[in-house]
Amino acid sequence: MKRALTVVGSVAFDNVETPFGVREHMLGGSAVHFSLAASFFTRVRLVGVVGADFGESERAVLSSRGVDIDDLEVVPGGETFFWRGRYDYDLNTAHTLETRLNVFADFKPKLSADSRSSEALFLANIQPDLQREVREQCAKASFVALDSMNYWIESARPSLLRTIGLVDAVLLNDAEARELSGVANLVRAARVIRSWGPRMIVAKQGEYGAALFTDEGFFSLPAYPLEEVADPTGAGDSFAGGFVGFLAAHAGEKLSDKILRAAMVYGSVLASFNVEEFGTERVARLTFPEIERRFGEFQRMTSFELIRPPIV
Amino acid sequence: MKRALTVVGSVAFDNVETPFGVREHMLGGSAVHFSLAASFFTRVRLVGVVGADFGESERAVLSSRGVDIDDLEVVPGGETFFWRGRYDYDLNTAHTLETRLNVFADFKPKLSADSRSSEALFLANIQPDLQREVREQCAKASFVALDSMNYWIESARPSLLRTIGLVDAVLLNDAEARELSGVANLVRAARVIRSWGPRMIVAKQGEYGAALFTDEGFFSLPAYPLEEVADPTGAGDSFAGGFVGFLAAHAGEKLSDKILRAAMVYGSVLASFNVEEFGTERVARLTFPEIERRFGEFQRMTSFELIRPPIV
Repeated sequence: MKRALTVVGSVAFDNVETPFGVREHMLGGSAVHFSLAASFFTRVRLVGVVGADFGESERAVLSSRGVDIDDLEVVPGGETFFWRGRYDYDLNTAHTLETRLNVFADFKPKLSADSRSSEALFLANIQPDLQREVREQCAKASFVALDSMNYWIESARPSLLRTIGLVDAVLLNDAEARELSGVANLVRAARVIRSWGPRMIVAKQGEYGAALFTDEGFFSLPAYPLEEVADPTGAGDSFAGGFVGFLAAHAGEKLSDKILRAAMVYGSVLASFNVEEFGTERVARLTFPEIERRFGEFQRMTSFELIRPPIV
Repeated sequence: MKRALTVVGSVAFDNVETPFGVREHMLGGSAVHFSLAASFFTRVRLVGVVGADFGESERAVLSSRGVDIDDLEVVPGGETFFWRGRYDYDLNTAHTLETRLNVFADFKPKLSADSRSSEALFLANIQPDLQREVREQCAKASFVALDSMNYWIESARPSLLRTIGLVDAVLLNDAEARELSGVANLVRAARVIRSWGPRMIVAKQGEYGAALFTDEGFFSLPAYPLEEVADPTGAGDSFAGGFVGFLAAHAGEKLSDKILRAAMVYGSVLASFNVEEFGTERVARLTFPEIERRFGEFQRMTSFELIRPPIV
């Protein structure tokens, strides 16, 4: 009995420029990166909106990974959300050059009975009122996670706090966790946010990996050490896809620390593949044996044993 | 047969202001923080210089940890190196408010036969010509590590490169490794620096921990998640003390990946204790059982197991 995971978020076309190349009109958006990553672990239902320019080849990328796009609304005559950005050599910061919200500006998520019945739900980075409306429609979801960003922290804080009170997991960048909590120390920032309801906080730390804060303690994992990052776009959403996707497959069970840690590793694995190539290129042709091999590499690069000094 | 480790670096008085308090005239300096941390693993010989203001209580801190200060030169009528700095809430960046080099300005390390005979050597952050002179005097040192900083990378690059060519390990902050190599990607930056001679590069990453780059691969460890960092001064030197101190105890043996990883953990453990209180306060009264307990906590916060998803 394969459980299902509903994701609500953006579907986009991206133009991206990095030191390693330029790509135009690539399939992108948080819900897309998330869905592809999560598809290795559970059935995924994507709720989003696109314009008339969204074509068969884009649908095929999602369908070939088994992503259910029945709830991907098409606005006749509309244009799909468009983002153009540039990364410089450090690749840590995206410089947004152009954003055209297009049909995404008026996005009102419409969930079919199927999407509402999923056992797990991911609220990608959209307006927190919409996130909350979706959350309330998915009464059967026993595991719900959300992502957000500085824009909503600054412009819709009260709504965001209400939504955070309704989810199990919050995924944020370090800087966002600090801004949201008003606390510079990340350990305390996570404690503050958990006091609002969520059982777990995932701090995404870019090239430094990711950290998990729960009642049971702290877990940290480095990022996979890549010598070339072709395109960081979607790394955070791919992480979320691996993390939430794996947990969705366990929705309804007790999510033990062991399961949460494995989810963190799957998230990191998916993020690491995502950035190896542009857009969705790498994850679209990824295989599960590749994922499992990289999981093993994460074990090798983080494991150690106690050796007592020869003389104390 | 206890091996010995010689360290050459600064001995200082520090005035430090952090959000958690203010302290004046604290014992500090890279060689001091390093020596105290390393003293848990091996015999330590400190080579440095102080002024007439360096008193019995400062000596006692070092002596009580067994640090050999026979080569701590005293300049009659001179004043000890003085640093005054402030940390703001993020605690990641030291703001230097005042530096008085005093007797350190004319420091010419003078090594006794004992100091020259040590099996291991740490060249703390001093002028690279001096580092090289010391390195050449310590012919028996089978393990040599070095720290440096942006100031020498910018003002004495050719000399620094020559010195780097003579050591086994280079310890740097991420930003320093990038500046030194001219490469933004840290994995490649470490590869470039290793091509100049050192077998290993340790990238110190502050609140994100530390990473080790060797021929055998990559190892990464988070920092210990402290809710309060009282004073970050000396964290890097304490890390180096734990790391090099543990390796010094194995000098002459093959330094296996297993030994290097344990050294990384000891470095992280010592750094984490160092920042819990001001100056040398915490490490000065640290015990080995406390170190070993925290080593175990590092294992708990980084370990995970492969769990395959229920359905692939």
